[in-house]
Amino acid sequence: MRVREDEVIRPDGGPGIYGVVEIRPSVGVVAINERDEVALVGQWRYSVNRYSWEIPRGGSYPGEIDMLEVAKRELAEEAGLRAEHWQRLGSVDNCNGVADDTQTLYLASGLSITARNLDPEEEIAVQWQPFEAALQMAMDGRITEVCSVAALFRVAIMRSLKEPDGLGKY
Amino acid sequence: MRVREDEVIRPDGGPGIYGVVEIRPSVGVVAINERDEVALVGQWRYSVNRYSWEIPRGGSYPGEIDMLEVAKRELAEEAGLRAEHWQRLGSVDNCNGVADDTQTLYLASGLSITARNLDPEEEIAVQWQPFEAALQMAMDGRITEVCSVAALFRVAIMRSLKEPDGLGKY
Repeated sequence: MRVREDEVIRPDGGPGIYGVVEIRPSVGVVAINERDEVALVGQWRYSVNRYSWEIPRGGSYPGEIDMLEVAKRELAEEAGLRAEHWQRLGSVDNCNGVADDTQTLYLASGLSITARNLDPEEEIAVQWQPFEAALQMAMDGRITEVCSVAALFRVAIMRSLKEPDGLGKY
Repeated sequence: MRVREDEVIRPDGGPGIYGVVEIRPSVGVVAINERDEVALVGQWRYSVNRYSWEIPRGGSYPGEIDMLEVAKRELAEEAGLRAEHWQRLGSVDNCNGVADDTQTLYLASGLSITARNLDPEEEIAVQWQPFEAALQMAMDGRITEVCSVAALFRVAIMRSLKEPDGLGKY
């Protein structure tokens, strides 16, 4: 993380300083196995001072521009998984008042086990939850990380769109 | 925004520095009028260098602990609206790898017009979209701010839960 301070002209014409937290583009992956279970990774989040279950997420390295490759790497590193099928779920902006963090979300399926390769700075647990249970966790506050919440909600809505009696009206 | 640098012990036992972007607790409001339209506010987001349509959002002042009061103030300040009915939609964490930003989301209805009172540093436009259109904007990337996306998706899922043929299976 790097913080940049720019001298700017505010909308009212006055001078100002705008601090931007520079974060490299990142990815998040909803990975679903053949039993319709979602891979959740858990770690202590120092910034918010609590343990957090999330979808596998991570940042790109400098110069990396193919977010799908980043997603493949993060899914392997954090969850020890490789996926055959990838679907892009769009990008979201986090903390856009202060940061340039854009996270691209994916749905991954056709999973198989691969070598896990954590950073030494990371200590990450993995659990599997039925998709409906993971969605419930996002609804009731057991999952609070916002990209994970948005991605799980999105998959739920996409699924309902495929059902004639579901959320099809949207 | 303030950045704090803590000396920490990493999971691998080594010493490290953990930078935390300190952001005061914030709120986001899905405000829906009697025609089932959602209030969206638009502004230039300097950090991501583009214009962004979002739900009304904002941060608390130092010492404020009642997020509902913050939500009422932000809805008035940014959209010029007062709401009779408030429903809490839970809290989400943004950028939890680097920031302590927790945003509490609300659904507001029973809307009436009140005085708008923008910060001099803000230049904010307002538009109304039918709920289904706003949801579509969040699905197709015209709304990318992640708290807005998560909140709109959540309301869509809550609505479908009330319908026997909707997402009730979740």
